[in-house]
Amino acid sequence: MRSIPVNIGNKTIGGGSPILVQSMTKTDTRDIESTVNQILYLEEAGCDLIRVAVPDIESAEALPKIKSKIHIPLIADVHFDPLIAMESIKQGADKLRLNPSNIQDEEWIKRIALAAKERDIPIRVGTNLGSFKERPGNPVEALVKSALDEINLLESVNFGNIVVSIKTSDITLTVRANEKIAKLIQYPLHIGITEAGPKEESLVKSSAGIGHLLMEGIGDTIRYSITADPIEEVKAGLTLLRDLHLRGGGLEIVSCPTCGRCEINLFEIVERVKEDFKWVDIPVKVAIMGCVVNGPGEAADADIGLAGGRKSGVIFRNGKAVRIVKEEDLYSVFRDELKRFIESKE
Amino acid sequence: MRSIPVNIGNKTIGGGSPILVQSMTKTDTRDIESTVNQILYLEEAGCDLIRVAVPDIESAEALPKIKSKIHIPLIADVHFDPLIAMESIKQGADKLRLNPSNIQDEEWIKRIALAAKERDIPIRVGTNLGSFKERPGNPVEALVKSALDEINLLESVNFGNIVVSIKTSDITLTVRANEKIAKLIQYPLHIGITEAGPKEESLVKSSAGIGHLLMEGIGDTIRYSITADPIEEVKAGLTLLRDLHLRGGGLEIVSCPTCGRCEINLFEIVERVKEDFKWVDIPVKVAIMGCVVNGPGEAADADIGLAGGRKSGVIFRNGKAVRIVKEEDLYSVFRDELKRFIESKE
Repeated sequence: MRSIPVNIGNKTIGGGSPILVQSMTKTDTRDIESTVNQILYLEEAGCDLIRVAVPDIESAEALPKIKSKIHIPLIADVHFDPLIAMESIKQGADKLRLNPSNIQDEEWIKRIALAAKERDIPIRVGTNLGSFKERPGNPVEALVKSALDEINLLESVNFGNIVVSIKTSDITLTVRANEKIAKLIQYPLHIGITEAGPKEESLVKSSAGIGHLLMEGIGDTIRYSITADPIEEVKAGLTLLRDLHLRGGGLEIVSCPTCGRCEINLFEIVERVKEDFKWVDIPVKVAIMGCVVNGPGEAADADIGLAGGRKSGVIFRNGKAVRIVKEEDLYSVFRDELKRFIESKE
Repeated sequence: MRSIPVNIGNKTIGGGSPILVQSMTKTDTRDIESTVNQILYLEEAGCDLIRVAVPDIESAEALPKIKSKIHIPLIADVHFDPLIAMESIKQGADKLRLNPSNIQDEEWIKRIALAAKERDIPIRVGTNLGSFKERPGNPVEALVKSALDEINLLESVNFGNIVVSIKTSDITLTVRANEKIAKLIQYPLHIGITEAGPKEESLVKSSAGIGHLLMEGIGDTIRYSITADPIEEVKAGLTLLRDLHLRGGGLEIVSCPTCGRCEINLFEIVERVKEDFKWVDIPVKVAIMGCVVNGPGEAADADIGLAGGRKSGVIFRNGKAVRIVKEEDLYSVFRDELKRFIESKE
């Protein structure tokens, strides 16, 4: 096992625990109602841990009110001001994120560590290339050194309840820095590509970076950074973990891109399945395929399958063809089979 | 260098050439006008190679008419029927994709190879787990064996103009099979996760799988399989290659996810930049950041940057802050700076 376990509220990061998906609110933390509503909506989507920005004392004071209304651990994200870090701990944050680039007073960092120790909450050493005052000549070395210096400082007051992250907006730099630090420490790693951009761009960049590290066995909690509704971050994180067989759950849709062979309206069927079955949280795999080239093969590996033919389709259940259906009835028959399958599992 | 080069029309796959992005039409190949229109639209988006389904002789006969109106190599995708493969070669396809699972007559495969040799066009040995008649107990071994058997057959008639692909709808299986075959052969590899599903799901699955292989140095041409408009496949492919520094070009948007610190309408600015500058094909990097935590750092690494403040923002050019602007003018000033930067590069 690469990492030691770190407890945060009622969850555990590292030490072989399931990899956790986290996100961050995009509301003003002082606006308790909006913040709580956003967190409840993310919880419902499967978010395991939530972080909120704490840029001032008033935001720190909002933490207990937010915490009393949510069900997942609440992480305070603090920059620049050690007094806000101290206040966030006092107000009951379940974990603190500190950025080594912008709280640099060693005595203050030690005082924060002692306060966190008293409350038994972890600190994430969250290093970010964008926070460096100047771009370092060797970013990988500089990022790892920045994280290690902060870890040494925390350890100097016997604080070891640490999670570490090193992020940049570049896949290659982020991967190299994480590979390097993973060899040097046993603390759990929080991984992600930071400032990864709009939805499509971030899904590409973040999935490549986070996916590569996870396939190397690196990463205990993940965060997709997406300039969009935070539910996209949670959905993408859960999808990646499921696709890598690191977490179960939800509807996996194997569907073909379609080509000149496809004679049914496959795009529409896939959209309807996504919409009608988005509530599914047990592991179910469906195959929705346009023709006989890969259709029967993929359907054979799915719980419920559909392979298109000439204005018609074959429905598969547990890998066996069970019915041939005209195109106009294809979706309704498939939907009923899928509903029945899901009900049989519940 | 892992792979030997293979020429296809006016392009080269492998041998250290830039990694090519390919897609496949979703039109009926016999419908020449729709197929040509779709290809021209994909060319415009940056598609390097295009494949069309050839399920019948009439589709094969459409190939020269399509080819005469497009500017990128045209690949014929043939399954089941060797006569269609022979006809596609005769009609001038620039490359042939054969699936070892569904044309199994050895004499026919040799005849197809000799015909391809005469025309000097390559054959892709395109193995796909979904095409297997039965799911093999050890899919990785079975996929690699299937590809190697077909390669041996082609080589037995001195045909070596080969590209190879091994695809499944599972990231881990696909990665393992490609890692294995990459050690055994020097032919260029076409990589992708097949039947990867709707847009968001495929962006996650495909980026993780293709990205991981590319970071290991495996892959000479890539295809995103997405159940959506094929332009999404091209855009995702180009984005991934740029993000991994394997190809240049286009607008890279580094933008933060926003949080409680952000006091400007960052989502809207990012959407407007995406829309107004989607035509950009030279390499340009912008940073659009909500606050001072990482804003100045990311802006310093971008050609043009923007870091939000209290209902205002700072504009950066070549890493230097040049102007403070009120929120209502932020986008127009940023847009003008970006236009000027792009014009200066053209």
